[in-house]
Amino acid sequence: MADFDLKKYLSERKKLVDNALKELLPAPTGLEKKVLEAARYSLFAGGKRLRPILCLGAADVVGGKMEEVLPVACALEMIHTYSLIHDDLPAMDDDDFRRGKPTCHKIFGEAIAILAGDALLTEAFDVTASVRALQSFPSERIVEAMGLMARASGHRGMVGGQVIDLECENQEADLATVEYMHVRKTGALLTASLEVGASLGGGTPEQIAALKHYGQHFGLAFQITDDILDVEGEAHEMGKTPGSDLASNKRTYPALLGLSRSREAARENVEAAVQALAPFRGEAEPLRAIARYLLVRRA
Amino acid sequence: MADFDLKKYLSERKKLVDNALKELLPAPTGLEKKVLEAARYSLFAGGKRLRPILCLGAADVVGGKMEEVLPVACALEMIHTYSLIHDDLPAMDDDDFRRGKPTCHKIFGEAIAILAGDALLTEAFDVTASVRALQSFPSERIVEAMGLMARASGHRGMVGGQVIDLECENQEADLATVEYMHVRKTGALLTASLEVGASLGGGTPEQIAALKHYGQHFGLAFQITDDILDVEGEAHEMGKTPGSDLASNKRTYPALLGLSRSREAARENVEAAVQALAPFRGEAEPLRAIARYLLVRRA
Repeated sequence: MADFDLKKYLSERKKLVDNALKELLPAPTGLEKKVLEAARYSLFAGGKRLRPILCLGAADVVGGKMEEVLPVACALEMIHTYSLIHDDLPAMDDDDFRRGKPTCHKIFGEAIAILAGDALLTEAFDVTASVRALQSFPSERIVEAMGLMARASGHRGMVGGQVIDLECENQEADLATVEYMHVRKTGALLTASLEVGASLGGGTPEQIAALKHYGQHFGLAFQITDDILDVEGEAHEMGKTPGSDLASNKRTYPALLGLSRSREAARENVEAAVQALAPFRGEAEPLRAIARYLLVRRA
Repeated sequence: MADFDLKKYLSERKKLVDNALKELLPAPTGLEKKVLEAARYSLFAGGKRLRPILCLGAADVVGGKMEEVLPVACALEMIHTYSLIHDDLPAMDDDDFRRGKPTCHKIFGEAIAILAGDALLTEAFDVTASVRALQSFPSERIVEAMGLMARASGHRGMVGGQVIDLECENQEADLATVEYMHVRKTGALLTASLEVGASLGGGTPEQIAALKHYGQHFGLAFQITDDILDVEGEAHEMGKTPGSDLASNKRTYPALLGLSRSREAARENVEAAVQALAPFRGEAEPLRAIARYLLVRRA
């Protein structure tokens, strides 16, 4: 697997997820169609599909059938998109642009944006409950997947992280607080993506634990490199104003540790993530490559 | 059961649900505790617990164990409360008071109110997934319950209804549109409450269908009598300004049908709801009494 082509892998998986998402989220009809238009607008605004790709990758690693896990992988992207829509709202981070495009509420208004987020969040659970009809998975594993998704999304996960992010604005925060926040705001759903993929793929408890461990370190490395990118900021590639997190006084790794120590921390977490995959062989090569890619990504 | 004491029944069930909710929603701790304080504020702001009571009632009817269904009944109240918090937001209905108390965003601010709603919605799925640990229910039924809850909450249900409600504001709308809206906005979760209770209670497909049918008519009767109450409005009892729906040009049953024909429609739907319970005997008496109560309620 020395010649593993990550770029091709990511592009193929992204296409797979995009197509599945288009089929899963119904075309807008009915008097309520505006909310689905808004949901689709944000869902197809250029996401990298990282969470679904990690979920599918975890299913691969444990020998699961990737196509059967695909709807649930898409559900994870719906949850991610819901969180972006709500985080961007005027009452929250008040962002006008994301990935270079106007945010949902700038196009559809605040009310529809709130409801589009609500719709995506609930649709994720509907989609996941519906895979029971495929009869590919034991129902226990579906219940477990939904529990993992709910915990990663709610006050124990993303909601909690966003609350802390809002509370810390314009305040001093130490490294422990920043990490506590990121583990919830970004790490929880990334980790859940791996656990869900591993569980639905039929992994053993040990395999699921190993992939969860990978996810935890991956999540931290992801956030640290995200902070570093923001500081080094290429406005064009990121689609947002460089240094904007520092400007609004948000606590970031480079602000707390300096750039050099932040890069080191990112490297350490990537190594720990790769190390967590030690029980697996070539089948885990994509997940190893994705983790290493965090250290060289430009966007 | 001629001497069935509805008032006592409702009060006892409400107490049961209130206690269970207090245990289920963790006491606020951690840096993110503000969002749980906000969620608890709205969750304990005087709700009648109608959805949990209907859910438990349905479980009783099919011979289910009420205590085992209780957490999921509470999850339905969490979903209901989330929808109230989001509907009240300035970008939506912009309501300052509900049940005579300041709305969530008036106390905690918009950002925390949005997140408190998000937290309650996800917590509902977490709580439901967690009942698997009780091993009282086949996992298929839990997956089914979560699917019903998700569909009732999302764009096919409450979110869809709220979108239509917003779109119709200051517009003419005919009876079909108003009914299409209410079936989603109010009816969907009420109906799901009965289906979930009947399913987790171990009901047969026929029993579940009968209770769903009851729920559909109950939902319509509930909305019509709500509209009538609003027109006849006793500000004190309702905790909101009487006639406020008419004033903001919302389409209501009395506005479209007149008061007398609206009362008739309410009565017809209550009768149809009671009729749907024909397969059951005395065990369905509480649900019959609750439906009939809609016609005489003052709040």
